[in-house]
Amino acid sequence: MQFPLTLSAILERAGTLFPNVEIVSRLPDRSLHRYRYADFYRRARALAEALVRAGLQPGDRVATLMWNQYVHLECYFGIPAAGGILHTLNLRLHPDEIAFIANHAKDRFLIVEDTLWPLYEQFREKAHFEQVIVVPMSNRTVPAGSTDYEQFLQTAPGDFRYPELDENSGAAMCYTSGTTGQPKGVLYSHRALVLHSFALAMTDVFAISQQDVAMPVMPMFHANAWGIPFSAVMMGSKLVFPGRCVDAESLLELWASERVTLSGGVPTVWLALAEVLEGSPERQSLLKGSRGLIAGSAAPESLIRKFDGFGLRLIQLWGLTETTPAATVSHLKPGMDAWPEDKRYEVRTRQGIPIPFVELRSMSDDGLAPWDDKTLGEIQVRGPWVAASYFQLPTDDKWTDDGWFRTGDVAQVDAEGYVKIADRTKDLIKSGGEWISSVDVENALVAHPAIREAAVIGVPHPKWQERPLAVLVLRPGNTVTEGELRRFLESRFAKWQLPDGFVFVDELPHTSTGKLLKTELRRRYQDWEWKHPGHAPGE
Amino acid sequence: MQFPLTLSAILERAGTLFPNVEIVSRLPDRSLHRYRYADFYRRARALAEALVRAGLQPGDRVATLMWNQYVHLECYFGIPAAGGILHTLNLRLHPDEIAFIANHAKDRFLIVEDTLWPLYEQFREKAHFEQVIVVPMSNRTVPAGSTDYEQFLQTAPGDFRYPELDENSGAAMCYTSGTTGQPKGVLYSHRALVLHSFALAMTDVFAISQQDVAMPVMPMFHANAWGIPFSAVMMGSKLVFPGRCVDAESLLELWASERVTLSGGVPTVWLALAEVLEGSPERQSLLKGSRGLIAGSAAPESLIRKFDGFGLRLIQLWGLTETTPAATVSHLKPGMDAWPEDKRYEVRTRQGIPIPFVELRSMSDDGLAPWDDKTLGEIQVRGPWVAASYFQLPTDDKWTDDGWFRTGDVAQVDAEGYVKIADRTKDLIKSGGEWISSVDVENALVAHPAIREAAVIGVPHPKWQERPLAVLVLRPGNTVTEGELRRFLESRFAKWQLPDGFVFVDELPHTSTGKLLKTELRRRYQDWEWKHPGHAPGE
Repeated sequence: MQFPLTLSAILERAGTLFPNVEIVSRLPDRSLHRYRYADFYRRARALAEALVRAGLQPGDRVATLMWNQYVHLECYFGIPAAGGILHTLNLRLHPDEIAFIANHAKDRFLIVEDTLWPLYEQFREKAHFEQVIVVPMSNRTVPAGSTDYEQFLQTAPGDFRYPELDENSGAAMCYTSGTTGQPKGVLYSHRALVLHSFALAMTDVFAISQQDVAMPVMPMFHANAWGIPFSAVMMGSKLVFPGRCVDAESLLELWASERVTLSGGVPTVWLALAEVLEGSPERQSLLKGSRGLIAGSAAPESLIRKFDGFGLRLIQLWGLTETTPAATVSHLKPGMDAWPEDKRYEVRTRQGIPIPFVELRSMSDDGLAPWDDKTLGEIQVRGPWVAASYFQLPTDDKWTDDGWFRTGDVAQVDAEGYVKIADRTKDLIKSGGEWISSVDVENALVAHPAIREAAVIGVPHPKWQERPLAVLVLRPGNTVTEGELRRFLESRFAKWQLPDGFVFVDELPHTSTGKLLKTELRRRYQDWEWKHPGHAPGE
Repeated sequence: MQFPLTLSAILERAGTLFPNVEIVSRLPDRSLHRYRYADFYRRARALAEALVRAGLQPGDRVATLMWNQYVHLECYFGIPAAGGILHTLNLRLHPDEIAFIANHAKDRFLIVEDTLWPLYEQFREKAHFEQVIVVPMSNRTVPAGSTDYEQFLQTAPGDFRYPELDENSGAAMCYTSGTTGQPKGVLYSHRALVLHSFALAMTDVFAISQQDVAMPVMPMFHANAWGIPFSAVMMGSKLVFPGRCVDAESLLELWASERVTLSGGVPTVWLALAEVLEGSPERQSLLKGSRGLIAGSAAPESLIRKFDGFGLRLIQLWGLTETTPAATVSHLKPGMDAWPEDKRYEVRTRQGIPIPFVELRSMSDDGLAPWDDKTLGEIQVRGPWVAASYFQLPTDDKWTDDGWFRTGDVAQVDAEGYVKIADRTKDLIKSGGEWISSVDVENALVAHPAIREAAVIGVPHPKWQERPLAVLVLRPGNTVTEGELRRFLESRFAKWQLPDGFVFVDELPHTSTGKLLKTELRRRYQDWEWKHPGHAPGE
């Protein structure tokens, strides 16, 4: 029973059992490219063969710089099938940072789509790829000195045989987007990606099925688009790739033309969709019966309710680059269906229970935190798709001595095992010796009809150490006063937990993957002058 | 990412996340025993601890002799958690054969339920267990010289720590029921059972979920009840064990009281259920919305249609003891829903497509058989839960030189990858140089309203080498003539494929696992005198 768990077996299965299933991609000119698994299978194998002929050695890194589209999917399978490591570069990073990452990973090849050539030019002097392969997505002329992807595929004679791969060898890698410090690489083994794919196909995880039309909106250049492409290809799902057009209107077009049943993205994607649909009731039924995965930051309850109204079930999950990434997922347990509505939604806004084989514990300063839904602790995880170190960096304090990964997320866990992330360790607000969860206050604020987005940060305070400051983006055409917001929050929070200041801005800073950039906010408001006297805990 | 795949992690997950989920078992006095995962978890760990204290060494075999009930489930997890190997003895075998198997496996311990003590007494002189532990299911006095299971559990002080287990170490074993030859043991590693559990929880396989109430009717003493207990515990499903009462009335009682959503068994179980429900229309809605797994032999189309009428979807699967056992499963691909009814049912009577990571090929005498839905070939499989050898036997011709397991099942495969088992290699009827599939003719025969069960065997023929003989069991109160049956079959088969003889009997011989015992039938009818002249192929 020693059959290895490799992505090649998934590619082989897809080509053999699902040759007629469609893969649809939005091209730069907004037209739709369509082909079938049979084509994808042939081309992914050709890519593997061409790479080997071009000198790829087992374990060599091949970088990609691409949006979500079919060639990226060919890279997802073709590079690992050749024994190489798919290294997805995050195109939203600063060019210098991309170069740093490519150099740190010692990427030998780069496969870049032509529309991103201008980005590549911004760091080409600093990076050291041996060969640059350009994908002619928009029919531009491939620049001199680079290789045309289509011609590259034609160098494969077509008699590719998979190299024998150890399931523990590397298949893909991704660098953490980290809001601070040097980017760190996470290497995913074939085994980890296969097991993660198995898990995503479980009914109680994402239920990815051949019946699905899956549209990953979360970028393929970050955390493998949450592993959706690997699992969907294993199960034979139709795939829809939105390319660079991830605005709500473009996505709704695809929902309509391709009958999408499963999608996923960060809250900002869903917020934008909700906004368009609220102004366009005749299109709300488009989403009916489909599922939406949401992660990256906590999903506000109001958003989950809104999509329930459209007939799309938002499913919250949680994970990190280091966890491949899915670690927990939030479904109701049987019996909870009969709970009062508010209690049901309270569970659904949680990050959920651990996926099979992800083991999870909560550690407070006093040791193991009880699952009492009160005690806050840092969430630590381990499992067959949880990283044990960073790529070519000394093991650091992100791992405990007994081998658990320290996620840096602080949470309370209830008796049923549902995790509720309160904050990043560093985003907790320490006020008068007690902790305030910025996430709780943010979620309450966005439930107000005038508020589009909210960030709550701890700002130094002469008396209380830190006090919460709310930084808010209003919905277009709305106004609200500080007094109204305080009254709105008072029913749900103790006085000492309320922000002592409210600032209205046009836009909040985000990381390239859509997370609030609180380090930047804290920097901006570090010299904030408090007018409010603050409250002692307990008030 | 080196976290091992062991059953201990499943046990730990179940105890932590699903303490309140119920496990219901039918006791020998027909009453229902109820407890919760928290109890199961505590007792399974106590069993592990008690076994270690009783001298169990890593890899030691612990035999069980039990029906489907909660203590058997405790053994499923407690024995492997201790580092031992769960060896389920098949209580339907001849006592001498059970003794042979226990001795071949060198079982050190036996855990037997008290109702099966009389069976044990029939082979105790021949077997060599060091310790016999008796489960007081019916409150009999535990026989002298044996250990009371409940007292055994109390020897555990309650501070059990899981031993560190290699995922490739053995966790369970089962001997093939084989209709011929010496029984052969298959050893399942922790890894194989975990991966198999992952697969069963996939939406496109069995979709086992925490929402399910799973009632395995297939015996836990054979092929791990198709792996359902392992996967259901991993997902937190409510479990219902029918004990020894697997008659249709008893099962329907459980369907009603426990709201079963998922069950499984061999065709005879489903045939019996259908018969009762047809005579009791008011109870047909009991099954509505539930799923039924069916395997062991091909499910007749008429049966699938009947259960569709009751609102229970029968799902065909195929596998062997050597494949843990699930290898293929039959769901419709998207698009097939729009096919004409007859074509849809034709697909659903097939054994289905390979489950992820099971690789399958069909080998005819001329090599690889094309997937043209015509060419018959032997099905060969490989994968992470396909055995690579038998337990302590030299590798035999069941494995090809290139490492595939020869299943002995002959099938045709269609272009979409759906397998249709025609026969066991040895059950094919060779008539005039052509092959006749006995299974096809049997399925057609049971579609006749007067026929309850049918076996078609090849019987030596002076001119045609072999000719088909049909051996039939009528439904109570029905009659039919040979001429009527011939006419009934003529629309679907060529003349040379029709049986040349029809015999009516009260009962057909079966193996202990419900399969037709064709070797026995062939023996009985070896001297059959043909009255019919037979037909040349093509007629």
